[in-house]
Amino acid sequence: MADALDQLKTRARDLGQLMQLGMLLSWDQRTQMPPAGARHRGEHMAFIQRTAHDLLVDPEMGRLLDELEPTMASLDPDGFEYGLIRLLRRNYEKEVKVPAALREEMARAAAEGNAVWLKAKASSDFQLFLPALERNIETRHKYVEAVGPDGELYDVLLDDFEPEMKTEDVTQIFAEIRDELVPLIAELREREIDDSFLEGDYPVDRQIELLRDVVDTFGHRPDSWRIDPTEHPFASSLGRDDIRITTHYYANNVDSLFSTMHEYGHGLYQHQLPAGEYEGTPVAGPCSLGIHESQSRLWENLVGRSLPFWRFYYPRVQERFREVLGGVDVEQFYAAVNKSQPSLIRIEADEVTYGMHVILRFELEQDIINGRVALADLPQVWNQKMHEYLGVDVPDDARGVLQDMHWSTGLIGYFSTYLLGTVMSVQIWEKMADDVGDLDELMERGEFTPIREWLGENVHAHGRKYPPQELLQKLVGSGIDAKPYLAYLKRKFGAAVAA
Amino acid sequence: MADALDQLKTRARDLGQLMQLGMLLSWDQRTQMPPAGARHRGEHMAFIQRTAHDLLVDPEMGRLLDELEPTMASLDPDGFEYGLIRLLRRNYEKEVKVPAALREEMARAAAEGNAVWLKAKASSDFQLFLPALERNIETRHKYVEAVGPDGELYDVLLDDFEPEMKTEDVTQIFAEIRDELVPLIAELREREIDDSFLEGDYPVDRQIELLRDVVDTFGHRPDSWRIDPTEHPFASSLGRDDIRITTHYYANNVDSLFSTMHEYGHGLYQHQLPAGEYEGTPVAGPCSLGIHESQSRLWENLVGRSLPFWRFYYPRVQERFREVLGGVDVEQFYAAVNKSQPSLIRIEADEVTYGMHVILRFELEQDIINGRVALADLPQVWNQKMHEYLGVDVPDDARGVLQDMHWSTGLIGYFSTYLLGTVMSVQIWEKMADDVGDLDELMERGEFTPIREWLGENVHAHGRKYPPQELLQKLVGSGIDAKPYLAYLKRKFGAAVAA
Repeated sequence: MADALDQLKTRARDLGQLMQLGMLLSWDQRTQMPPAGARHRGEHMAFIQRTAHDLLVDPEMGRLLDELEPTMASLDPDGFEYGLIRLLRRNYEKEVKVPAALREEMARAAAEGNAVWLKAKASSDFQLFLPALERNIETRHKYVEAVGPDGELYDVLLDDFEPEMKTEDVTQIFAEIRDELVPLIAELREREIDDSFLEGDYPVDRQIELLRDVVDTFGHRPDSWRIDPTEHPFASSLGRDDIRITTHYYANNVDSLFSTMHEYGHGLYQHQLPAGEYEGTPVAGPCSLGIHESQSRLWENLVGRSLPFWRFYYPRVQERFREVLGGVDVEQFYAAVNKSQPSLIRIEADEVTYGMHVILRFELEQDIINGRVALADLPQVWNQKMHEYLGVDVPDDARGVLQDMHWSTGLIGYFSTYLLGTVMSVQIWEKMADDVGDLDELMERGEFTPIREWLGENVHAHGRKYPPQELLQKLVGSGIDAKPYLAYLKRKFGAAVAA
Repeated sequence: MADALDQLKTRARDLGQLMQLGMLLSWDQRTQMPPAGARHRGEHMAFIQRTAHDLLVDPEMGRLLDELEPTMASLDPDGFEYGLIRLLRRNYEKEVKVPAALREEMARAAAEGNAVWLKAKASSDFQLFLPALERNIETRHKYVEAVGPDGELYDVLLDDFEPEMKTEDVTQIFAEIRDELVPLIAELREREIDDSFLEGDYPVDRQIELLRDVVDTFGHRPDSWRIDPTEHPFASSLGRDDIRITTHYYANNVDSLFSTMHEYGHGLYQHQLPAGEYEGTPVAGPCSLGIHESQSRLWENLVGRSLPFWRFYYPRVQERFREVLGGVDVEQFYAAVNKSQPSLIRIEADEVTYGMHVILRFELEQDIINGRVALADLPQVWNQKMHEYLGVDVPDDARGVLQDMHWSTGLIGYFSTYLLGTVMSVQIWEKMADDVGDLDELMERGEFTPIREWLGENVHAHGRKYPPQELLQKLVGSGIDAKPYLAYLKRKFGAAVAA
């Protein structure tokens, strides 16, 4: 058995290597690659996908898993051995149903779709995007068919990002959230908050310094992080000591601050993943996209949009942008960065309206996968829903259906994890407060080490040993629950934040 | 047969993909990676090496090659089919003798050696470097032993970079060069040339603009090149339309100009490699390091250090650095950038003394591989030879034996190709002049398209169909010959260049 386990670990490490190479390819594509290089990048990504597929579905992998199956009863179910066998078994059984040619087709459609989307978004031309979208959705249909769903077709896709999560459960959670958000959004719409100073002259070179300081203040090991400019911010990692976050600098606002705190949360997760024997294998990777997002939303919102944090940190921002913020006090700044107002763009949405952006996409995705909406009609349906849910009118598709890249690369099922993660971030935060003590006080003193360490020990160090709901259960004693999140929003926004 | 050939092509494409991923990993390591990421990078490189090894020595590869062998008689020996089968046969037969574990060991020793060398060079501490060097040399010894040489041990290593080239031939060519260079160097040492203005205030932002202009002036397809800063300049490519050259900016000189023209030559080769069916396979890759270097040295020296080029281009340099060069005319500038003077650093050496730096390394490498020198004694032997060949005294190991990275990654046999390429660059240049006409006149008019296109058609488009000496034979009608190179040096430097 030791021998079979060693062989499995070696194969797992190779899978991990391929995942890291894929990360480098996409980081490079989005921050460094000369534009004409896109022609080659699809082939690179297809190669990675196919090689990972071949490695995972290799009959020898199946044989090793079969050999190890009977030993599982004697393994610690909280150990990495057990977790690795369970995870690879699960991935093997799903992937073995997917033809290698389809994996390559998906990778190529994604690379090309992304390139077309960039152009279509720049010119707000949905017609230009439509054929690439059709091709990507077609590959997803083939994928769903190949895997063969038990119940909902959408389950197959959702499960890739949030293992074992069911469409039905998400539908229920999102309905509960929608019912509470709609009246709250309406109430907040009437509130007058001055945020005019968030637009102004925010020189990029000073933003660059500031973001470095934010990341250093939150904390990390030396020489292991970098921050690069990109169109749509993301985080990437080539290993625990090679963390790459990205941001978009706008010379007329400091939105980069919040996107950087968000990506810091993702980066910190990767930075604190399990070291040691299982490092670099999938079981030492992040648990799920939802859990990943709980970490980014935690740093962006529960830390980064909290009054105690700004009591500590605002002087550093004010000092750097004295021309704009010289006369703005911390309460005014805090109120402004928490102003809730229905808007067009998901990634710019405040904490209250954000959820509706995700719910809209979740509903559309189900219509897409179940063939209830023609892809050509998406802009119209999108615009209707935006009007209905947020009361905003979409002026063009660039600020509507074309705003996000996900669908251009066939990523259906991904959006839901943003809101699931946001919900879980509050559950995790409250558990941390139980364990660590007064988090507000820590933030106000600029002490982030206890927060970083608690997350490291309680979330990050488990890697991917458990499916996300099992991890959450162990961590907070329950599965996903929207109530703490909704209570948090009402506490923070229902009260007079502008007072 | 068509089927076997298709399968071979698919495998060849995968090998090509792995080579490109390896290129991205090292480009990233040398331009982008956070320093702490080095810990993971060795694993990444080892994975690529092992995967490429496994792919190449896969028994199925041997079977396909055996199946195709009898068909070769009916194939066009100048075609890519023939070239691919011949190349893979050759690589297969060499690689199949190398254990996979040794390939990984070599990759790991290289990654770690490089990291140690960086530190050792920074502190000029050869003792710090010695254990890593020993480890790398030991893996090369194992490699030579595994491959099993027919004659000279060094042949095995040389052949990796310059296929089919023999130590004996290189020894003879280098002896011929040394005999001519030594008196020429002595003669030039006495010549007084004012190059004081090459040191001065050369603001980096203006250098950045200038280098973009040089590369645009020489020519390339749009959106396909980038130039990044690095410690030791190199060129890299992720495909014909993703060309990445690097340079080192010094605020007090314009050395970056020449290193950029050098890397442009490498980049152009990759940019004009064969497109079409064989693109991305090894047979559509560059022929050898020597041929690669012939292209870089051609642009750096035969174009970039020629008087006709400077008659055309000098005004653009002068205009950007008017404070330093305002009173310097083109003849003075030309004389200065061609000043020959023995110096410590290979990559800063002029055209005349350059060869002696390579010859020194070639001789030392043979002593190393044949165990005639203890690695601990290298600094001493290096310094003696520098005194003997160039009459310079080495003040510290950073400017001596530690100056180049090659040995830190186990690259023994590589240096020779710099001088072989330089020699071939003159043979190729003279053949181009025969075909194209007056190259001086073209350069003086700033017309580089005929040069670029001739190289594209006559050198680059052949990819790796032939071993380098066969390519050269087809191209110029003879094998490598030092005479044109030596005649060129005497023509250019023997006459009164400063007149």
